[in-house]
Amino acid sequence: MTQDVLSSPPFSCVAVIGVGLIGGSFALALRAAGMVEHVVGCGRSIANLKQAETLGVVDRWTTSAAEAVADADLVLLATPVGGLTEILTVIAPHLRPDAIVTDAGSTKQDVVAAARLALGDNIRQFVPGHPIAGAEHSGVAAAKVDLYQNRKVVLTPLATTPEPAVTRVTQAWLACGADVRRMTAANHDRVFAAVSHLPHLLAFALVHELAGREDADLFFDYAASGFRDFTRIASSHPVMWRDICLSNRSALLQELHDYRRELDTLALFLERADGASLEGVFSEARSARNAWVDGTPLLNNAAEQLPGE
Amino acid sequence: MTQDVLSSPPFSCVAVIGVGLIGGSFALALRAAGMVEHVVGCGRSIANLKQAETLGVVDRWTTSAAEAVADADLVLLATPVGGLTEILTVIAPHLRPDAIVTDAGSTKQDVVAAARLALGDNIRQFVPGHPIAGAEHSGVAAAKVDLYQNRKVVLTPLATTPEPAVTRVTQAWLACGADVRRMTAANHDRVFAAVSHLPHLLAFALVHELAGREDADLFFDYAASGFRDFTRIASSHPVMWRDICLSNRSALLQELHDYRRELDTLALFLERADGASLEGVFSEARSARNAWVDGTPLLNNAAEQLPGE
Repeated sequence: MTQDVLSSPPFSCVAVIGVGLIGGSFALALRAAGMVEHVVGCGRSIANLKQAETLGVVDRWTTSAAEAVADADLVLLATPVGGLTEILTVIAPHLRPDAIVTDAGSTKQDVVAAARLALGDNIRQFVPGHPIAGAEHSGVAAAKVDLYQNRKVVLTPLATTPEPAVTRVTQAWLACGADVRRMTAANHDRVFAAVSHLPHLLAFALVHELAGREDADLFFDYAASGFRDFTRIASSHPVMWRDICLSNRSALLQELHDYRRELDTLALFLERADGASLEGVFSEARSARNAWVDGTPLLNNAAEQLPGE
Repeated sequence: MTQDVLSSPPFSCVAVIGVGLIGGSFALALRAAGMVEHVVGCGRSIANLKQAETLGVVDRWTTSAAEAVADADLVLLATPVGGLTEILTVIAPHLRPDAIVTDAGSTKQDVVAAARLALGDNIRQFVPGHPIAGAEHSGVAAAKVDLYQNRKVVLTPLATTPEPAVTRVTQAWLACGADVRRMTAANHDRVFAAVSHLPHLLAFALVHELAGREDADLFFDYAASGFRDFTRIASSHPVMWRDICLSNRSALLQELHDYRRELDTLALFLERADGASLEGVFSEARSARNAWVDGTPLLNNAAEQLPGE
């Protein structure tokens, strides 16, 4: 390894644990940006790992996480959050002292707790992260070099995380084209419980409730495009979403509680045939959503109603 | 009117009350199919009616529903369901004895009740209908000649509706390219409460609940594509959906009740951290939805799990 220092990429060896859509796209983007010399892939499916090598996503692969991280200066954990504790425990004794570990989990407080247990004092090497990128497709074949272009990546460093470690991970995601944000893990979990985890639960619930009926086929026969879009996320991966729900269950239960109260109110309006209140709720929802889609701040909604209109 | 009988279109004059996406597309499709000699449009917005004439959707227009139906042998009511009672009452004394009236309302029991009151014995002239076509855009400018191609149209004739009247309305919708189905009004309302009205209510509720928070902008800032699809129907028209919810509130309340029970169950699974049960619900939902999207019957799902896989 006698490489000119000036031409060395920022990372000599990146280990990607879980070479699917998320991990594979990270590797592809880092390589395309010239950020990494060498990528090691790790996973359970040898077929998927072989495909990752064929597709040029990784330089080499192994099914041993301990072996994968041994030479790495950057480790990305891109497996379902339910398995992170085990993986962190396995890799902890094999990490280089200067290695930085980050993850792609959809929940953060739980991941931080797992990392504390597994890494002990070396929690300083861990920068929790969450790239906000769709995951309808899985496996390395779905990986794309531009998956993270203009996508948000939320980092939730601990109060004790050294700033240089956060900077290194930020640098990697910026090179992937991402819009990198910082938040506390608690705030992250509260926000994503509301805008992601709850909607998934609601969509799964609707389809499950219908599918369990004796005459389910009759209902599905008349379901149309509104139903299709509303339930798209109910085609998401059950194990991944089981893990997310369990891992963020305290924030999710709070959101579910608030949402059920909202439904109680709507049920009351319906029972009373209170059209004005229903219309009020629908109008406010529509204005808020349209403002969001159009990228205009919510507070400016009122300005749309000009006098005389 | 000395036209050769052989070349006469099946309908001499069609009156469309409410010349928007639904009514306008019906008129365009009937004209394109050579099904109608003359189309009269009726509505409240003169600007929209003038545009309908300019676009060749109608031959003439009037803001008087009584005048619009006077010469018509087929009348389509394509206004929000909340206004149907009033319109039916207005047109009842002006209908030709051989005229057939149909509608495009999203609920049917309520519309039938209104028609009974307004038409009395002439309820025999009424064939309730519901074209299943999206309505994100409104106004005649959104009308398309092929809107109903391969779309379902549900007719819910009464036990007393003469078969020739149903046949005439069926003929009109078939000429528009639609897949015409028959159902009882009660069954229709039950099915659409579940697959359409409830999802709309749930989407409105989610966005409304978030938008009412002090830090709403923070949440919307991190909402992504899953949220966008899940809430697309929350951008639907508030007045139209107020009317639908009120008009089908008994079936909708039943669906809402069942759905809240499903959420109670999921909340319990979360409280108990019962991952196996959550995964079970998610898996069944995903299988059912994928089978629906793929067009395979639900009962065949089990066959996908071949031995040895």
